[in-house]
Amino acid sequence: MSSPEGRRTYTVVGLGAIGGYYGARLAAAGFTVRFLARSGADQVRRNGLLVESPQGEVRLRSVEVYDDPTLVPASDVVLLAVKTTDNGSVLGHLPELAGPGSVVVVMQNGLGVEEAIAATVPESRVLGAMCFICSHKIGPGHVRHLDYGQVTVGEYKPGAGPAGVTDAVRAVASDLEAARVPVRTCEDLAEGRWRKLVWNIPFNGLSVLLDAGTDELMADPDTRSLVEDLMWEVVGAARACGHEIDDGFVETMLRTTDAMTPYKTSMKLDFDAGRPLELDAIYAAPIRVAAGAGYAMPHTAVLYRQLRFLDQRPGRG
Amino acid sequence: MSSPEGRRTYTVVGLGAIGGYYGARLAAAGFTVRFLARSGADQVRRNGLLVESPQGEVRLRSVEVYDDPTLVPASDVVLLAVKTTDNGSVLGHLPELAGPGSVVVVMQNGLGVEEAIAATVPESRVLGAMCFICSHKIGPGHVRHLDYGQVTVGEYKPGAGPAGVTDAVRAVASDLEAARVPVRTCEDLAEGRWRKLVWNIPFNGLSVLLDAGTDELMADPDTRSLVEDLMWEVVGAARACGHEIDDGFVETMLRTTDAMTPYKTSMKLDFDAGRPLELDAIYAAPIRVAAGAGYAMPHTAVLYRQLRFLDQRPGRG
Repeated sequence: MSSPEGRRTYTVVGLGAIGGYYGARLAAAGFTVRFLARSGADQVRRNGLLVESPQGEVRLRSVEVYDDPTLVPASDVVLLAVKTTDNGSVLGHLPELAGPGSVVVVMQNGLGVEEAIAATVPESRVLGAMCFICSHKIGPGHVRHLDYGQVTVGEYKPGAGPAGVTDAVRAVASDLEAARVPVRTCEDLAEGRWRKLVWNIPFNGLSVLLDAGTDELMADPDTRSLVEDLMWEVVGAARACGHEIDDGFVETMLRTTDAMTPYKTSMKLDFDAGRPLELDAIYAAPIRVAAGAGYAMPHTAVLYRQLRFLDQRPGRG
Repeated sequence: MSSPEGRRTYTVVGLGAIGGYYGARLAAAGFTVRFLARSGADQVRRNGLLVESPQGEVRLRSVEVYDDPTLVPASDVVLLAVKTTDNGSVLGHLPELAGPGSVVVVMQNGLGVEEAIAATVPESRVLGAMCFICSHKIGPGHVRHLDYGQVTVGEYKPGAGPAGVTDAVRAVASDLEAARVPVRTCEDLAEGRWRKLVWNIPFNGLSVLLDAGTDELMADPDTRSLVEDLMWEVVGAARACGHEIDDGFVETMLRTTDAMTPYKTSMKLDFDAGRPLELDAIYAAPIRVAAGAGYAMPHTAVLYRQLRFLDQRPGRG
C-alpha cells in the first residue's frame, strides 16, 4: 500500500474546507493522496485543486479524485474529513478504504465520534485530529484558507484513560509536519476534544442563533460574557470527566478569538447553506457525557435546544 | 374630576394594543375616557376607535384623544399603557395627568416598574395591572383582539410585603368589570408580576431569538422543554423572593398556551418593527432581584444576553 518511495499513502474522505486543505498540503509535499468527493469529482479531475492561503497558494494540476468509494485503492492512512452528519453515508465504505493495518484519522468536531468508527474498522488504529483552522470551500476543488491551521492529533483508546503519544500518532504528525502543517500531539484524545469544544460550543451555536460573526460576538459585552460563561462550563465539564484543563485556557481562547480574522463558523456556513447542523457531536454528546459524570451544563443545554429547534424546523434548507 | 354621573374619569396613556383595548371597553361602558396618543391622534379624532374582537366589535365614533399631554384634563384614574421603554418620555407628564388623589394603574410588563412611577406621583396611589391578553395594534385607532383579556390588579407598596386588596384596587376592578373585562385582584402585586413573568420570560425571548410563534415553540419538544425549564426557573426565583407560587402553576401556563390562538408576542412585534425591546423590565430586573435573594437564573440570563445583543446591534430598526 505504500507509495514507490516508501512513504505512507493517504486517502482523504471529503474534499471540503478541511479535507481539501490538508489533502492538498500533503499532496504538495509529495505524498500520494487519493481524494474521495461526494460531488464535483469531474471538475476537480479537469481543473485540479486550488488552495488560496496567506501562507502562499497551493495549486495541484493533477489530482487523484474518486466519486465511487469502491474504486479507491486502500491507503495507509485515511483522513476522514466529512461532517459528522455525513458519517452515515461514509462509514459503510470505511473498511475497504482503510484496509487492515491502516490508520484512520477522524478530522471532525465534537465528542465521541471515534467510538462508532473504531467499531467499523476493528483492524485499523483510530486517531482523532482537532483542526484549528479558518478555511472555507469556495467551490469544487477550491478552498480558501483564512487563518491558523494547526492540528492536534491523539490516538483513540476505548474506555477511560489516555492512549499516550503512540507510534501511529507520531507517524501521522511527522507526515503533516513534512507538509508544512503545524502539529501538536496529545496523550489524551478526549481532553483534546474537550479543549476544542471550549471554542466550538459558544461560537458555533451563537453564530447561528444570533446571525453573527466571531468578531461581533466578542465585541458586544453581553455575548462576550455569555461566551465566557459557556467556555467555563465546558472546562468544568471536562474536569468533571477527569481531564485537567488549566485556568488560563479560557483566557487563551478569548485572546486567540480576538486576534482572529472575522470568521463565519462551520455551523453558521452549514446553517446558511441549509445543511444539517453537527448538533449531536458538538452539543448532545458533551452534555450527555458530562451528565454521566454528574455535571450539568445549563448554558450549553439552552443553546442546544434552541439550535435543535432551528435544525429540525420544517422546510429548512 | 369625576364625570357628571359621579363615575370615575380615565386617562389612558398609550393608544396601542393594551390602551386601545381596555380604554375602548371602558368608553363603551359609559366612562369618560381621555386617550393620550404619541401618534395618530388626528386620524383617531376623525375616524374613531375600532376594536375587533371575538367577543363582538367595539366601535367608538367620537373619541376624546390628545397628542399634547399638557392639554389633557386631570382624571381620577390614569392607565399607563405604553411600553416600559417609552416611560422616559411619559413620566415627566404623569403628575399633571394624574393630579392629587388620583390612581395610576401601571399596565406594563416586567418587574419593579412601579417604583419609579410611585416616586414621580407621590400624591397618587399606584396600582399594577397584569394584562393576560392577545391583542395587536393594526393601525391608528384600530386594535385586533385575538384571545383572552383578563386583568390582574394589585396595589404597589414600597419595600417588602403585600399591600392587600385595597379600596383603590376594588374601585378599578369594579370599573373594569362594568366594562366587561374579567378581573382578578391580587393581595401581593410582586407575586402577580412574577406569575406574569413565568409566561413572558420564555415566550417573549424565544419568539424573538428563534423567529417563532407560541404554537411552534410548544409543538417542538426541544423548545417546549426549554420553556418548561425557564418557567420553573422563574417560579424558583419568585419563591426565593418570598412569593409562594404553587407547583401546578407551570402546568396551567403550559395548558393555557397550548389552547391559545397562535400568537406573536409583544416583544416579537417590537423586534420586527425595529422598536426597542423591554429587556430591563422583563429580564434584567427579575435576574437582579433574584440574585439579591441569592437565586441564580442561568437559563434566563442566557436569553437576556442573546436578546441584548440583538437589541443593541448597530443599525437595527
